[in-house]
Amino acid sequence: MLKTRVRRPSYLKKLKKAEDMIELFPNGSYVGWSGFTGVGYPKKIPTALADHVEKNNLQGKLKYNLFVGASSGAETENRWARLDMIERRSPHQVGKEIAKGINEGRIKFFDKHLSMFPVDLMYGFYTMNKKDTNTSGTKDSKGSNKLDVVIVEASAITEDGGIIPGASVGASPELIQMAEKIIIEVNTAGPSFEGLHDITMTDLPPRRKPYLIMSPEDRIGTPHIPVDPERVVAIVESDYPDQTQPNAPEDDTSRAIANNLIEFLKHEVHHGRLPQNLLPIQSGIGNIANAVIGGLSGGNANFRNLKVWTEVLQDSFLDLFDSGHLDFATATSIRFSPDGFKRFYDNWESYAPKLLLRSQQVSNSPEIIRRLGVIGMNTPIEVDIYAHANSTCVMGSRMLNGLGGSADFLRSSKYSIMHTPSTRPSKTDPTGVSCIVPMCTHVDQTEHDLDVIVTEQGLADVRGLSPRERARVIIEKCSHPDYKPILLEYLERAEYECLKKGWGHEPHLLWNAFDMHKNLNEKGTMKLEKWT
Amino acid sequence: MLKTRVRRPSYLKKLKKAEDMIELFPNGSYVGWSGFTGVGYPKKIPTALADHVEKNNLQGKLKYNLFVGASSGAETENRWARLDMIERRSPHQVGKEIAKGINEGRIKFFDKHLSMFPVDLMYGFYTMNKKDTNTSGTKDSKGSNKLDVVIVEASAITEDGGIIPGASVGASPELIQMAEKIIIEVNTAGPSFEGLHDITMTDLPPRRKPYLIMSPEDRIGTPHIPVDPERVVAIVESDYPDQTQPNAPEDDTSRAIANNLIEFLKHEVHHGRLPQNLLPIQSGIGNIANAVIGGLSGGNANFRNLKVWTEVLQDSFLDLFDSGHLDFATATSIRFSPDGFKRFYDNWESYAPKLLLRSQQVSNSPEIIRRLGVIGMNTPIEVDIYAHANSTCVMGSRMLNGLGGSADFLRSSKYSIMHTPSTRPSKTDPTGVSCIVPMCTHVDQTEHDLDVIVTEQGLADVRGLSPRERARVIIEKCSHPDYKPILLEYLERAEYECLKKGWGHEPHLLWNAFDMHKNLNEKGTMKLEKWT
Repeated sequence: MLKTRVRRPSYLKKLKKAEDMIELFPNGSYVGWSGFTGVGYPKKIPTALADHVEKNNLQGKLKYNLFVGASSGAETENRWARLDMIERRSPHQVGKEIAKGINEGRIKFFDKHLSMFPVDLMYGFYTMNKKDTNTSGTKDSKGSNKLDVVIVEASAITEDGGIIPGASVGASPELIQMAEKIIIEVNTAGPSFEGLHDITMTDLPPRRKPYLIMSPEDRIGTPHIPVDPERVVAIVESDYPDQTQPNAPEDDTSRAIANNLIEFLKHEVHHGRLPQNLLPIQSGIGNIANAVIGGLSGGNANFRNLKVWTEVLQDSFLDLFDSGHLDFATATSIRFSPDGFKRFYDNWESYAPKLLLRSQQVSNSPEIIRRLGVIGMNTPIEVDIYAHANSTCVMGSRMLNGLGGSADFLRSSKYSIMHTPSTRPSKTDPTGVSCIVPMCTHVDQTEHDLDVIVTEQGLADVRGLSPRERARVIIEKCSHPDYKPILLEYLERAEYECLKKGWGHEPHLLWNAFDMHKNLNEKGTMKLEKWT
Repeated sequence: MLKTRVRRPSYLKKLKKAEDMIELFPNGSYVGWSGFTGVGYPKKIPTALADHVEKNNLQGKLKYNLFVGASSGAETENRWARLDMIERRSPHQVGKEIAKGINEGRIKFFDKHLSMFPVDLMYGFYTMNKKDTNTSGTKDSKGSNKLDVVIVEASAITEDGGIIPGASVGASPELIQMAEKIIIEVNTAGPSFEGLHDITMTDLPPRRKPYLIMSPEDRIGTPHIPVDPERVVAIVESDYPDQTQPNAPEDDTSRAIANNLIEFLKHEVHHGRLPQNLLPIQSGIGNIANAVIGGLSGGNANFRNLKVWTEVLQDSFLDLFDSGHLDFATATSIRFSPDGFKRFYDNWESYAPKLLLRSQQVSNSPEIIRRLGVIGMNTPIEVDIYAHANSTCVMGSRMLNGLGGSADFLRSSKYSIMHTPSTRPSKTDPTGVSCIVPMCTHVDQTEHDLDVIVTEQGLADVRGLSPRERARVIIEKCSHPDYKPILLEYLERAEYECLKKGWGHEPHLLWNAFDMHKNLNEKGTMKLEKWT
């Protein structure tokens, strides 16, 4: 099986066992993994390293600077976090243990625009403080700012040694360009994904070129990641598939949000601001995204000949393909559920010609997103009355997963849309947390970036509005009835106080702006009795 | 004189007096002006309209929705604001009276990324709520979402009726594309700027194309703005120059900031992260920018063969040209002082071949800025310890000028640099306002966008750092000695409180985050006695 996948004979001589790779990973190493949203990540070596640490009680003694395009598999990254093996991590993560490590101050994490991370990595910005961490323990004679080891999962290897990734591309092209040593895990548990990728490598300024993509189906690269074979130090066979989870099901709230959004898109078509088949769609992960994608071809929406330019594809896109109304989709990752992957593999011939996977630098490229006029949709933690959004830090402090591609898309899309339930439950109140707040406790998307905010209550179209107009529309259309009077009172008081001082462009009661959050912290609900 | 400038004979038949244009501007009109940073704006008709309002006591009765690429001349826009002639304004402004109108709630203002404003305008996002405002007062039969009248200043007109702008291009190409009627003010007080422009018009998705610019000197457009002659309703002669001000002089603080920055650039060259001649430079307006540009070729900096990709050129670039070390500069506006313009005109032959003016959509294009690897530099109102920056709203509420191109550049540059004095004076304390604060009261640039913060105290290089590492470096290197212990105490308390709750990724004391601002408001200084 392995031989049919590895078409470069010299690589087969480098076949190794995962357990034998441990010496390549001394404490403090700068390590890169392939993978994006929990698919296409290396499985064998991270597991072998974790076993090694566990068996030899090396917790906290073998720690790594870990760079992965986005999140990898919970059973690898999360386990590393539990075993205190992560010193530094960027630019995104998913998993309880790793979030815990970050928020308890054990893991130095920074999140970064996913389109920008691979370039900043290649600029040497993330390795410039690297100490002598190479295997020999002596200072790197080349003064290299490369990553010490990069582990990439491949679904096959070409004759000239190029890597054919699996279900994600992510930052692999740039990780490989920045790698001192490369280890390839060839996954034989799934099929070869050959033909499904369009790979571009990264040149640095002043030699960068435009991405000549004018439509989601345009190919500008190669079907594999070119690799310098001399830097490949080992090939390891990997024998189990990506560990994905089932998708979050739709519910009444997400369906109501989707309906509001689809009415809006129809309205835009009606007024000639969108063509009949819309423009390329970007959609995130989760049940709202599922409901939106589900709603595009069904009911009275009836959009036809759709195209998708997005970061991640989830199961609902398979339904959209099956409806016959999705002409083409491109992303950096297909994160299907186990059932979704089965369905995808069983019908490979029908899906594959309509699908292309690119690097995250391309899938999330502001250049291309702006050119294509993408309809960008995302879910925040909270949105404020002036249309700033918090995508990352609960209570301004606690990191969830990271920025991801939210700002890549929302900053450059033609339509920048935030969809969220108007409330979320607190421990004691089913509507204890309002997702519409006076002021975001952390800002990832600014008021200059959002066009539309939509909840199950309604849709606020804030294009061309001044901050005070925006605030009224958002409160009126999007907030939950329990919070409407609370938010309106904040706005009116803020207007009163600020206008009389001549500060009234975007009125805030700065010393009270987080009182709803304070009330939540102290009393378990944002339902403030009164503004003091 | 006018005839030598207007090479299209049919236009000369449309020659009118400014006073005769008033009926084209009924109350509620959507009006566009050329102009950017106070150069290249129309002068005669805005003045005639203001005279008309003043003479007939029409204050508040003739109000307009006014769209200009950035700021126009104080004597026009500011006077309109004083006469209560502005209902709505976007995306940027400069002037005491207009800021007053905005902050007292009389003018509906929204600021927008300057690269994005012209596109959103063409999407119809800013005219979609337009009522029947055409001259006849009846509903526009075409259901047009165009601007009613656009006034553009030209330095000359070509044989086929195209406009050769003056010292700025700004949003004129898109304003003209969106204009129902066009009035051209031909300015004969300055020279013709023919040959100095590279003009591209805007296609909308799905028909947008890449900008094939690989270096600041690349030309991709025409030397004039193409115009549909049938939409030109009048030509008016304009006979006085742009009313610019002298530049803010350098001082010890701005020179210290510039020195810190130049040391950093040398450090980057030394480590191979920048070529010897750097990468294209973007620099803002003001005395820090002046000191930086001045420092690039002088002293021990000694950078050679520099190129500039920026939004606005000010006088210091003339010095850099004269030093022989600036090979090429491109921008959307040249905002010289009166002396600077004289110097420019007197030496036209030496400067003109090294200069190109483009539309603001191109000069500020994230696509091109990222491709070229621009070194972006900007001055904020305040920066917080986690590297968010406030560029627009003092105390979170009071609008200064607007976002401008700050986020266009800082979001996409290779080096995103914020330079600011560590303190500014309050009314009672010469260092009463710290520009380094625990939490920005308004966020325009996020922590995901800034690489370097520099004050006269030092330079914080935050690339690849986690938020808590960032906070220590920023406080240590950038804050004023008077504020260092105050900020450090905030950080340590926030870490203590948040880490114990498992919220410690980006620790904040949410209910006290603005206490320094509160102290300033109540006691005239941010020097807080203690954190409660």
